[in-house]
Amino acid sequence: MQKEPTIENIKEARTRIKPHVHCTPVFSSSTINRICKARVYFKAESMQKVGAFKARGAVNAVFSLAEKEIDLGDGSYKGVITHSSGNHAAALAYAAACRGIKAHVVMPDNAPPVKKAAVAGYGAEITYCPSTQKDREETMADIMEKTGAIFIHPYDNPRVIAGQGTAAMELLEQVPEIDTVIAPVGGGGLLSGTALSVSALKPKAKIYGAEPEEADDAYHSFHSGKIVPVENPNTIADGLRTSLGELTFPVIRKNVSEILTVSEAAIVEAMRLVWERMKLIIEPSAAVPLAALIAKRDLVNGEAIGLIVSGGNVDLDQLPWQK
Amino acid sequence: MQKEPTIENIKEARTRIKPHVHCTPVFSSSTINRICKARVYFKAESMQKVGAFKARGAVNAVFSLAEKEIDLGDGSYKGVITHSSGNHAAALAYAAACRGIKAHVVMPDNAPPVKKAAVAGYGAEITYCPSTQKDREETMADIMEKTGAIFIHPYDNPRVIAGQGTAAMELLEQVPEIDTVIAPVGGGGLLSGTALSVSALKPKAKIYGAEPEEADDAYHSFHSGKIVPVENPNTIADGLRTSLGELTFPVIRKNVSEILTVSEAAIVEAMRLVWERMKLIIEPSAAVPLAALIAKRDLVNGEAIGLIVSGGNVDLDQLPWQK
Repeated sequence: MQKEPTIENIKEARTRIKPHVHCTPVFSSSTINRICKARVYFKAESMQKVGAFKARGAVNAVFSLAEKEIDLGDGSYKGVITHSSGNHAAALAYAAACRGIKAHVVMPDNAPPVKKAAVAGYGAEITYCPSTQKDREETMADIMEKTGAIFIHPYDNPRVIAGQGTAAMELLEQVPEIDTVIAPVGGGGLLSGTALSVSALKPKAKIYGAEPEEADDAYHSFHSGKIVPVENPNTIADGLRTSLGELTFPVIRKNVSEILTVSEAAIVEAMRLVWERMKLIIEPSAAVPLAALIAKRDLVNGEAIGLIVSGGNVDLDQLPWQK
Repeated sequence: MQKEPTIENIKEARTRIKPHVHCTPVFSSSTINRICKARVYFKAESMQKVGAFKARGAVNAVFSLAEKEIDLGDGSYKGVITHSSGNHAAALAYAAACRGIKAHVVMPDNAPPVKKAAVAGYGAEITYCPSTQKDREETMADIMEKTGAIFIHPYDNPRVIAGQGTAAMELLEQVPEIDTVIAPVGGGGLLSGTALSVSALKPKAKIYGAEPEEADDAYHSFHSGKIVPVENPNTIADGLRTSLGELTFPVIRKNVSEILTVSEAAIVEAMRLVWERMKLIIEPSAAVPLAALIAKRDLVNGEAIGLIVSGGNVDLDQLPWQK
């Protein structure tokens, strides 16, 4: 059974990934401070390598693989593999390229062209398959058997979680006054990593997860005490459509104060607010913490609030406020 | 006759405006460095107050006014006035609000609603008039006579130029290795301020102006030795439609190496490149230096190149790559 990472693992991750990821900047806006009645700090993982925090977890996972784990004995190396059409696939491709090993990505053949191009652009070998769970798993098993590629789960993997936890670790150093952190929650890799960092480094700080009402599995899981997956969620926040995992759920249950849910309209409005006032391109998922802070200000305890802005990958030809 | 500002004036401006403007961050992108075969540094005035470098010049001009220049003797103060529908109007409104005096803005009645709202949002008193030069001048003269408001020219004003020069001054401190600076040129306030700063602080560095082919008055003026205004320019770079002024032209002629001109397509492509790869919202005018660097790389001398990213005010409902 996999174990949750310790703060030491997160510190090690930070050293390990340092040559390959950015220490992203932190921004604030007087207008948004006024709206939120707080000092709000945006940790811009939108400016991270591959445009999302996912680079942290993927690089940590890929560079944590021991030489003997990947050595095929004939002078060549095993690759890594995942099934995804999102930021994790691009991040894994990037991480593998940094280490000089192969990345395989299994993608539904109906994935948007812009996502196919992004993953291909980082040098991954893409295998297309029909978009059912069964086809995807069979295709992956097939490639793993043929190549020995090692599966890197997008969130239910302790090394991935430790990598994601480095963003909040940096943030607390960049802005020591922070007393509250809000991160978006999909599969829970970012939120669990954030929770582990913040709980260890600043035990008095509050930690909140933020998710779309349309994909509120974390809310129901958090309050019922067991994982309640969401079926076919219909949210614009495409990074948050997945449900909590076996490894991320208990970490979140133990360390997080509350899960805040927000409407689709609130997500789009918060995203546009950041574009207009902060001049930062952020994706819908990354706007969810701000949307939650604005909508649920009475629930959120805090005067200096850090938001993890998870990514900035948006199809510029199809913006959510356009028909 | 007005005199060009000295480097001392620019240093004084920096101290004067400090409480009211941001020291904007500098960004870079490994992808763009590869494309440009140089280390390229983006000075993000898009993140400046009011979303453009114009805040620097306007704040310097407004706070340079002596108490006795604006005192009406009855406990009230004269305001300031300009005619513009762009970033200078918003900047002047912001600067006046910071000082607690009135800003009057004369605007053509056909100005886009988004621009009207921006200027009104900073608290200016707007007077609409038909969009001819004559109507605009008469309306302005009328308000000046009634209120005593002081005209702050958008670029042909030494205090405005000194304020704009503070951006390059900051940039040279933030990235001392810079050996070349490119700034966009419309009326020339930003370019002349940049040229004065860079020439004084780093005499060996090269300075370039960049402008749209469709508004290439600076190119023709620079090479003919006299101001050649452009008539009704049709460029997407709305901040660069004006022609050089009596004060900005000689500064540019003396201190700038070359004026680089670029096509409309190159401007849109450079703008989109920055949005996609750097996740920064920049307006078309602000993309012109990058477009010039990419298109005219063989003309631009430099290994560490600073670009002044002039602003980030874009109508998010009408992006240039959309039909």
